[in-house]
Amino acid sequence: MTMKMTLHELEHALVSVPDWTIKNGKLHRQFSFGNFVDAFGFMTRIALVAERMDHHPEWRNVYRMVTIDLITHDADGITYKDIELAIAIDSLV
Amino acid sequence: MTMKMTLHELEHALVSVPDWTIKNGKLHRQFSFGNFVDAFGFMTRIALVAERMDHHPEWRNVYRMVTIDLITHDADGITYKDIELAIAIDSLV
Amino acid sequence: MTMKMTLHELEHALVSVPDWTIKNGKLHRQFSFGNFVDAFGFMTRIALVAERMDHHPEWRNVYRMVTIDLITHDADGITYKDIELAIAIDSLV
Amino acid sequence: MTMKMTLHELEHALVSVPDWTIKNGKLHRQFSFGNFVDAFGFMTRIALVAERMDHHPEWRNVYRMVTIDLITHDADGITYKDIELAIAIDSLV
Repeated sequence: MTMKMTLHELEHALVSVPDWTIKNGKLHRQFSFGNFVDAFGFMTRIALVAERMDHHPEWRNVYRMVTIDLITHDADGITYKDIELAIAIDSLV
Repeated sequence: MTMKMTLHELEHALVSVPDWTIKNGKLHRQFSFGNFVDAFGFMTRIALVAERMDHHPEWRNVYRMVTIDLITHDADGITYKDIELAIAIDSLV
Repeated sequence: MTMKMTLHELEHALVSVPDWTIKNGKLHRQFSFGNFVDAFGFMTRIALVAERMDHHPEWRNVYRMVTIDLITHDADGITYKDIELAIAIDSLV
Repeated sequence: MTMKMTLHELEHALVSVPDWTIKNGKLHRQFSFGNFVDAFGFMTRIALVAERMDHHPEWRNVYRMVTIDLITHDADGITYKDIELAIAIDSLV
């Protein structure tokens, strides 16, 4: 089972995803696009990557904004799976 | 310009979308699916319908749950556009 | 490496996917929907499943029609991966 | 009703979409991406644009390749709708 990261591990891991912050105990990033088409195209690519990794985001979309929060529910906290998904999402931008 | 509905108009319109409620001043409904694939397939169909109507949802997805809030930002409230989109979304279920 | 199925294996496997035929050496099925929105929603769900299986269809869409051909290029023929993907696609209908 | 373009009109219009050719009486272009995720993300954005324009492509996808053919069936040939969709697709690349 995937374990919740310690604060020390998390601080170290955040170096790999400098555009993400911790918000309400979740790995958080907001993206803004030119329009809905581009925002939803981005979401579709994330959906494919997430399904492949079998680890899915909590996310919210309002027109051209996409807000993503990553947490591993089974571990009740942020795990390496969230860091991996964040890295994968960043590579899609 | 689309006008915010009066309370009386809204009560009347809600008859057409009985599964929706008013929450935080927005037209609200939550959907649950068997898995992420079905949830995101549903979202894609809504995205297509919304783009065609040029009226987009505020929505949130967590794995197999899709939560939708409809409001017309230009009118600072719920308009007939939101009712129309709610009806269109219901027809996709 | 996944091996191309023998004719005997293939005949046996086709029992599991009775709506599919062999056409030009590929596992073939055509789907028809009410409109483009439903056709593309179906395609999105297949895309998610295919990405997860790391095995992708050859497919064509014209408005409300979706035509799918399955083959395993590495094996230069139909393999169990194609049968599995066909079964997964059938489960989405 | 949208009319089929004359050869002269078509030659003139093709200047706007220099990466498209005429193939089998349809406006044709092939796109190649790094992987399936990017190819399908592109398709999703096209799907949204097409649904909004109410004019849809004939298209085919094989892993990271997307082949598009545009024709207006009602007019039995290429019309300005196809040119407009081609321009919109080019703007997504």
